Amino acid sequence: MDKLDAIFSPSSVAVVGASTTPGKVGHDIFANILRGNYQGVLYPVNPGARSVLSVPAYPSIEAVPDEVDLAMIILPPKRALNAIEESIEKGVKGVVIVSAGFREVGDEGRKIEDRIVAMCREAGVRLVGPNCLGVINPMDDVRLNASFSTRMPEPGQISFISQSGALCTAVLDFAADRDFGFSKFISIGNKADVDELDLLRYFHEDMDTRVIMIYLEELRRGPEFIEAVKEITSGSRPTPVMVIKSGRTGPGAKAAASHTGALAGSEAVYDSIFQQSGIIRVASIDELFDFASAFATKSETSLGKVRRRIPTGNRVAIVTNAGGPGIVATDMTISSGLQLAKFSDETIEVLDSHLPDTANLNNPVDVIGDASQDRYEHALAAVIRDEGVDGALVILTPQSMTNALGTAEAIVRVANRTHKPILCCFMGIIDVSPGVKYLQERGYPVFRFPEQAAKAFGALYKYSQWLSRQHLAQFDLTHDKERAGDVIRDCLEKGKTHLGELEGNAVLESYGFTVLPTRLAENRDEAADLAQEMGFPVVMKISSGQILHKSDAGGVKLKLADAEAVRDAFDEIVENAKNFKSDAVIDGVLVQKMAGPGDEVILGCTRYPVFGPLLMFGYGGVFVEVFQDVAFRLAPIKRNEARRMTRSIKGYKLFTGFRGRPEADTDILERLVVSLSDMVMDHPEISEMDINPLLLHEKGKGATVADCRIILKQPE
Amino acid sequence: MDKLDAIFSPSSVAVVGASTTPGKVGHDIFANILRGNYQGVLYPVNPGARSVLSVPAYPSIEAVPDEVDLAMIILPPKRALNAIEESIEKGVKGVVIVSAGFREVGDEGRKIEDRIVAMCREAGVRLVGPNCLGVINPMDDVRLNASFSTRMPEPGQISFISQSGALCTAVLDFAADRDFGFSKFISIGNKADVDELDLLRYFHEDMDTRVIMIYLEELRRGPEFIEAVKEITSGSRPTPVMVIKSGRTGPGAKAAASHTGALAGSEAVYDSIFQQSGIIRVASIDELFDFASAFATKSETSLGKVRRRIPTGNRVAIVTNAGGPGIVATDMTISSGLQLAKFSDETIEVLDSHLPDTANLNNPVDVIGDASQDRYEHALAAVIRDEGVDGALVILTPQSMTNALGTAEAIVRVANRTHKPILCCFMGIIDVSPGVKYLQERGYPVFRFPEQAAKAFGALYKYSQWLSRQHLAQFDLTHDKERAGDVIRDCLEKGKTHLGELEGNAVLESYGFTVLPTRLAENRDEAADLAQEMGFPVVMKISSGQILHKSDAGGVKLKLADAEAVRDAFDEIVENAKNFKSDAVIDGVLVQKMAGPGDEVILGCTRYPVFGPLLMFGYGGVFVEVFQDVAFRLAPIKRNEARRMTRSIKGYKLFTGFRGRPEADTDILERLVVSLSDMVMDHPEISEMDINPLLLHEKGKGATVADCRIILKQPE
Repeated sequence: MDKLDAIFSPSSVAVVGASTTPGKVGHDIFANILRGNYQGVLYPVNPGARSVLSVPAYPSIEAVPDEVDLAMIILPPKRALNAIEESIEKGVKGVVIVSAGFREVGDEGRKIEDRIVAMCREAGVRLVGPNCLGVINPMDDVRLNASFSTRMPEPGQISFISQSGALCTAVLDFAADRDFGFSKFISIGNKADVDELDLLRYFHEDMDTRVIMIYLEELRRGPEFIEAVKEITSGSRPTPVMVIKSGRTGPGAKAAASHTGALAGSEAVYDSIFQQSGIIRVASIDELFDFASAFATKSETSLGKVRRRIPTGNRVAIVTNAGGPGIVATDMTISSGLQLAKFSDETIEVLDSHLPDTANLNNPVDVIGDASQDRYEHALAAVIRDEGVDGALVILTPQSMTNALGTAEAIVRVANRTHKPILCCFMGIIDVSPGVKYLQERGYPVFRFPEQAAKAFGALYKYSQWLSRQHLAQFDLTHDKERAGDVIRDCLEKGKTHLGELEGNAVLESYGFTVLPTRLAENRDEAADLAQEMGFPVVMKISSGQILHKSDAGGVKLKLADAEAVRDAFDEIVENAKNFKSDAVIDGVLVQKMAGPGDEVILGCTRYPVFGPLLMFGYGGVFVEVFQDVAFRLAPIKRNEARRMTRSIKGYKLFTGFRGRPEADTDILERLVVSLSDMVMDHPEISEMDINPLLLHEKGKGATVADCRIILKQPE
Repeated sequence: MDKLDAIFSPSSVAVVGASTTPGKVGHDIFANILRGNYQGVLYPVNPGARSVLSVPAYPSIEAVPDEVDLAMIILPPKRALNAIEESIEKGVKGVVIVSAGFREVGDEGRKIEDRIVAMCREAGVRLVGPNCLGVINPMDDVRLNASFSTRMPEPGQISFISQSGALCTAVLDFAADRDFGFSKFISIGNKADVDELDLLRYFHEDMDTRVIMIYLEELRRGPEFIEAVKEITSGSRPTPVMVIKSGRTGPGAKAAASHTGALAGSEAVYDSIFQQSGIIRVASIDELFDFASAFATKSETSLGKVRRRIPTGNRVAIVTNAGGPGIVATDMTISSGLQLAKFSDETIEVLDSHLPDTANLNNPVDVIGDASQDRYEHALAAVIRDEGVDGALVILTPQSMTNALGTAEAIVRVANRTHKPILCCFMGIIDVSPGVKYLQERGYPVFRFPEQAAKAFGALYKYSQWLSRQHLAQFDLTHDKERAGDVIRDCLEKGKTHLGELEGNAVLESYGFTVLPTRLAENRDEAADLAQEMGFPVVMKISSGQILHKSDAGGVKLKLADAEAVRDAFDEIVENAKNFKSDAVIDGVLVQKMAGPGDEVILGCTRYPVFGPLLMFGYGGVFVEVFQDVAFRLAPIKRNEARRMTRSIKGYKLFTGFRGRPEADTDILERLVVSLSDMVMDHPEISEMDINPLLLHEKGKGATVADCRIILKQPE
């Protein structure tokens, strides 16, 4: 028995802190379990009462004359601690602490919470909460409403995990209004022990759960979460996971030493996690329900096996009895990344034979306002059979001849003969309700407005793309990890945390980046000789630990074409630097070969506690800040993720032979993104960095680091 | 009496085509008027029936022994035409044709429709429809449900105009579900006569209407619409107008001869119209209702005058009894263009004195889960009094101590003492309903989820910005319209529709654009002389009517620094051109002075039937296609609109002294946008054009046309 079974499907429950006073949490939760028709045995524990709601009470959990699977604890922190001790002694398998007053109120609460967690872990007992709404399992063989919501949802196929107790009640109300059922429902509160990842794993194995919804405020695991959830959302028996995450707009960008640091933020981290793990992020609770109901639909194979209705392509057929909603559906279809299917001649012929002259036979098919269920059935059957159609939206608006129930029956008849998804939009709430009810009871999602149906179809298609994504063989990369480590150690020992180009280039070179020959000249003639050696034209830059923004100090000269120009530039740069900052210690002037032409891109990284390094790629140079055309991923990533990442920016178009421009070396780009990931994983001392610009040359000509900035920090 | 009064508030109605057969439109509409408790006199007209639903019937409208204000016509086209004739003779003031079968089914129907319109116009009778759902006026003194919806909405303050009959029923159902009332409700169908602009003007004058909602599929008036609606939305007694427009994603970009043509499209036209006229575009019907209810709220001044609750700034205070929803509200507040208010010390002190220790006194204020109405009242009163607060969101989640009704009463008490908007979010549908009802009945909007409330507040703020926008004095521009006209006429006479740089520059110069000295050289020495005259460096470009893409032909040479280089370039360009296209007629080679440095922007125009010239401004060069950072406006525009337009693109940041770059000459930019508008208004022959790039120089140094393309078409 999985330890979490004791929490969701206990055969006996003790409510420790059950109260006789209505309105108190300890009373209400007990009442909710009792009146919810719980299928197991229920014991109130209260030393001061003979009975609670007529059920004989026990003075302590130890006194309960039976095994107890689950202890529901509704007691203030110190008394909760004792109750846990006794519960463990009693041999309970799971504990839910509903009460608040722990970590969230301060130090003392945190200490008690930590002790409780340690005790539970040692005893092998799983703990939900504290500070949560409780647990609900509406399935008929359990019917446990161990929560302080009086409302027990209908049984269904969706499991819901909420980090906010307050939202739970609203969601349950909302679900009741939409006839929406759940398989499991849990509020995780402080998630001192059981967290969303434990639950994702558990629900993934749960045969009653077909879709998982999460309301999330924060995660406490990063790369581990990604790896585990990727398996859940796209492994051998995939379960779609939908999340609504609050905290979408963080506070304004904090002061950061790099572009990457300035553009990243916790939202970039979360979006990366969701993207890399295949979690579908939704924008609102409405959308959460819309998508979840679309994902829960299934069809049966001829052998009686149930399969999920996921489209294999993005070609949608629309059948409607009204023009306006058809247009709305078309709009949202296209802006959801789908396309309108083009019907075969045969399909058009079949449609023509069944529909009146005024009907529109092309997509969207308009069966006209006076359509009865027959016309819907013929039209839907014809388009869904078309090989060029991956699924259908059926729109019904109530008009004088409309038979909502008959049409619903017709839709189900057609749907029974196909595995393609069919999403319905019955507009209006009251007049169409018999049809809506008929469809919902049979597991077909019905939406109120065509936008919602089209958007949900878009989510289904996106998920199908995730499931069927291609996997390239990994790159075979070897890095000189040791050399980079030496440079970094050396700098840190000298107290140097902002690496200049000399050291930065050395680190990057160890990971396969092409850097420009760069040498330090201490006088004008040495500079000229170095330039001669590397070949003209060259760039010269001041080198001083006190001057970080070299351009501002007049410390950069470009395109120097001969030895004389180099000599003059040396003097001028040193002069400017002295004027800029009279006490600057000037090491000399860097002489660097000028890079060949290329597109400016930015590669960078910034590091977050818990989550680790967040990689950034984007269109570089000054545009990075203006257009913010960037993509993020949490390291480590490999070739496939690097490809998806680089291709996801708008500016990628410029690299693909756009408007007669040469095609850029995107292969190298993908290799370098993976190398960067390897580098920041190997060297936790790199706390923030930019390569901006990385000059991406023509296909076959690689890429060159034109400037870089690496900031080190001794990891704690 | 306004002619439309006869349609919305007739004192007598004749239903021509009233039927005795239930289920027929002619029966149902008659029944709906009769049973809807219409306050006027109702006459069924049906030559074959003695009575309809017990009401004595008349064989024709002429036979009705009374004046008839409104004739509802439910007859097929040809019989409708006769009925209109008789109705006009009878002296009706308004006509609604519900039946379909006109313009929308083909030529014959269109002809009948046109004749009906001509007859009505001549008689001074207004016509609604054909092919519409009808008209509803739920206000108590009229109570007219002249539609085929059995549902009569509650009276309210919002008027609704729908171009789609089918959507009407859905919207009425939806409204009933949300206790949403209407002042007027109309389906305009084919809008053969009465269209949305007539109705906007009428509802704007209507004392019962506070907000207008439109479901729109297409407009048939452009600049006139903008001017009229601008006055409605921001004139002396402004009425907010909200639109949901379908057809959001058009078909893929059509082949266009300019960047502007390729990037524009009907959506750009509509967005321009809405922006320029102050119409608020919403994304879904849900949002339409959310915003409309926020805009309908009002407060009373001490003199008993009603005013709309519109915030004067964007600083929002949030009061909540749960953390999670507070975070969600904060997120949406910020992403809706608002900010969280910072409270004064005094406010914090007052909050501190009323709230428990665990409460959060900073914004969002958390009054804690066990808050009663008192705590809400104190907290809301304190924050709304703060001068740094422009409005509030109040969030309530049902928890054990929550008193939804009591809290609603407290909110109304506070709201009665302020003009600042207070939007409420009572989460959950059933448990909080007494509070929701109390608020709604008093005209306070209540939302289900905090996102919606915050978004609606964002819309209120955006509207307040529109109302209080600044007006600069207009530019005093003089153009050489005649010279430009001569050039254009000359080209058209020669059959030249694609203007090259010589003619294009001449046209642009006449409108105050700075162009580069450009001369045609017929041989290498002439080229060198011309270059010498204008000063080095120069650019050279092939001039041939057969070579449009000069770069592809090797026909462009840049940065030529001396006479010798110019001579060589001449030969090379001619040679390349001959190789590229052996039969090309080569006029010679253009010699052009090289422009100084500047930011590349694009200015352009493309022309639409009905709507006229659509102007485009954006970040130029190759980026225009990749980032599509462009803004559109329908011409004519003046200085203020030019300013809003230029400032609305992301790349504008680059012109304002970004990252040490010089500030660009944005004053000139605004002047040039206005000049462009003047130019395309003056010369309807310009069908499409790009100036790309226009080089925008440093402040005070103007802008230079570096390349242009003008396409002419003889206007029809």
